[in-house]
Amino acid sequence: MSRITDVARRAGVSTSTVSNVLNGRSERMAAETLARVEAAIRDLKYRPNTSARQLKTGHTPLLGVLVPSMANPMYGFIAREIEAMAQGRYGFRIMIGNTYRDAEKEKHFFEDLMAHGVRGVIIISSMVDEQHVEAAAERGLVAVSYDRRATPGVPSVIDHVTVDNFESLRIATSHLIEQGHRRLAFVTPSGRTMSRNEKIRGFLAAAKSAGLEGSARVVESLPVDEYGDSMMSELGRMQARLLAKSPDRPTGVIGVNDLLAFGLMAGFRDEGLSVPEDVSVMGIDNVFLSTLMYPAMTSVRVPVPEMAQVMVERVMSRLADASLPTQEFVFAPTLVARDSVVPPRA
Amino acid sequence: MSRITDVARRAGVSTSTVSNVLNGRSERMAAETLARVEAAIRDLKYRPNTSARQLKTGHTPLLGVLVPSMANPMYGFIAREIEAMAQGRYGFRIMIGNTYRDAEKEKHFFEDLMAHGVRGVIIISSMVDEQHVEAAAERGLVAVSYDRRATPGVPSVIDHVTVDNFESLRIATSHLIEQGHRRLAFVTPSGRTMSRNEKIRGFLAAAKSAGLEGSARVVESLPVDEYGDSMMSELGRMQARLLAKSPDRPTGVIGVNDLLAFGLMAGFRDEGLSVPEDVSVMGIDNVFLSTLMYPAMTSVRVPVPEMAQVMVERVMSRLADASLPTQEFVFAPTLVARDSVVPPRA
Repeated sequence: MSRITDVARRAGVSTSTVSNVLNGRSERMAAETLARVEAAIRDLKYRPNTSARQLKTGHTPLLGVLVPSMANPMYGFIAREIEAMAQGRYGFRIMIGNTYRDAEKEKHFFEDLMAHGVRGVIIISSMVDEQHVEAAAERGLVAVSYDRRATPGVPSVIDHVTVDNFESLRIATSHLIEQGHRRLAFVTPSGRTMSRNEKIRGFLAAAKSAGLEGSARVVESLPVDEYGDSMMSELGRMQARLLAKSPDRPTGVIGVNDLLAFGLMAGFRDEGLSVPEDVSVMGIDNVFLSTLMYPAMTSVRVPVPEMAQVMVERVMSRLADASLPTQEFVFAPTLVARDSVVPPRA
Repeated sequence: MSRITDVARRAGVSTSTVSNVLNGRSERMAAETLARVEAAIRDLKYRPNTSARQLKTGHTPLLGVLVPSMANPMYGFIAREIEAMAQGRYGFRIMIGNTYRDAEKEKHFFEDLMAHGVRGVIIISSMVDEQHVEAAAERGLVAVSYDRRATPGVPSVIDHVTVDNFESLRIATSHLIEQGHRRLAFVTPSGRTMSRNEKIRGFLAAAKSAGLEGSARVVESLPVDEYGDSMMSELGRMQARLLAKSPDRPTGVIGVNDLLAFGLMAGFRDEGLSVPEDVSVMGIDNVFLSTLMYPAMTSVRVPVPEMAQVMVERVMSRLADASLPTQEFVFAPTLVARDSVVPPRA
């Protein structure tokens, strides 16, 4: 078992520099120094002694992680990345809760975190109204919100880490338009979240700039409680069956996320249509399962590992220094073209 | 907010009966009474006061859950079911760790659980050697092991909850044989776990009873560290590419789990083969994604919600009464036939 002095020696720094990294106080450190310490921690498989740390810092080395549902592979992936980072670098474990985008469940979770002495939490929710999160942060929780931007003009005591959801849909829609599609649809569950609103705006902006506002439809489906693991894809499947029979059927369809888009592909097939020959379909998120679909599904990559790293670092930094100003981190999405989008039939 | 007296009144029982249910002391209760109390808890959305409970019982209302990787949709599904049950009925939160089937990581997790005052843990691992789990249980952790049976003839201080993995493969293999397949393969990563061993035995037993021991191969692929979310499916994909080119190519192939089987389907297609026309493929687990594959994938259902309920109940019961004898619970799998298995070409 290696010790902090071994890490310091290998990185060529003092033990207090290593300690600063371990406790999230790396804000003002040279990037090169930070990278060297991280490499030494990794190489030596150094693992901080959490009990000693707890005695010293007075808070529990547990990080709360709140997800809509662990059964959605995208959230499982994010939670895994958060845990790997929190455990690997800081020796923190995670306490996780499924909240199904229900503000009451989220509030209960915050209360339980505080009762357990947990002071840091990452919230994957994207609710339009974040007041309950702000309230918990005012009472002492260090909170980072995933998948939504800060509300413009409203002072916030929480950090926001998100992909640019507007841009995700703008590039997805532009891809369909470049392939020659004129009749477009964006399918989303009807419950409005901040990220869904941004996606709708991006879809409509891209359509408008190509003069297609008249033939681009936003299809808001039934509300979904996301309780079941298959709810999101079933909703896409049902919606595709309806779209398949609609007059002026769209030839290019985007799902709000990959799971819904998997359902779209299955639903169009249920109605005897071929993907992509009769209808092109794409998703958002680029979960690894996209490559296993047939045809392999075009999607938009969300840089999850990079975002997980920033989220964990922000919690640790603010646990170490509560006066750190809050920030908004917006990551760029990338188009990943595969086989589910082709030009429409002439 | 409803109180325990409201639950008791609605169920027509005393508050101490309700309290027995909430604290896992329902072993000797009539099934009908238990069901009535559970219905009342659900109807009234009753939520136990965890702080009061902790003062009374002296242990933290947190349950440890150890999974190979949350990024695998099957483990995300199990974790979600465990959390829903632990939170809904007992007011427990979960502390989760990814351990990548690494005994050292599992040991660290047990230590951290004890340091946090957590006394119950559900272990999803299926390692052949469980001594480190037994050792942790001897030191006071109440442990339930998922996906493996108890080692015959070895006294154990942990409960075991598993599907009958031998039977899963026996019915899967028999299904291929009934459809007329004679050249069979079972594909699994090479790291041996208890569940993989059982599956291999079931596969070979079914082949043997049909006189096919000469044409049934177990294909053990490279070891997999299961770190990445896509590792399991990539391994299936790679293996299918090799199988496609092998002499006496099998016509019926079973993956150790659905994720690996998704990769098998993709890999056969990469080599220009059609599923199911050229090769039938099936998986095990019946994750919801199976229905979204094209063709929809035949699989074997593992009764996850029922198993999660028993696992949570066992932890709670043994936290309440440490003298409760350990038990083994073996659940029956069910074949779910879809479109990825058809008779082989003549």
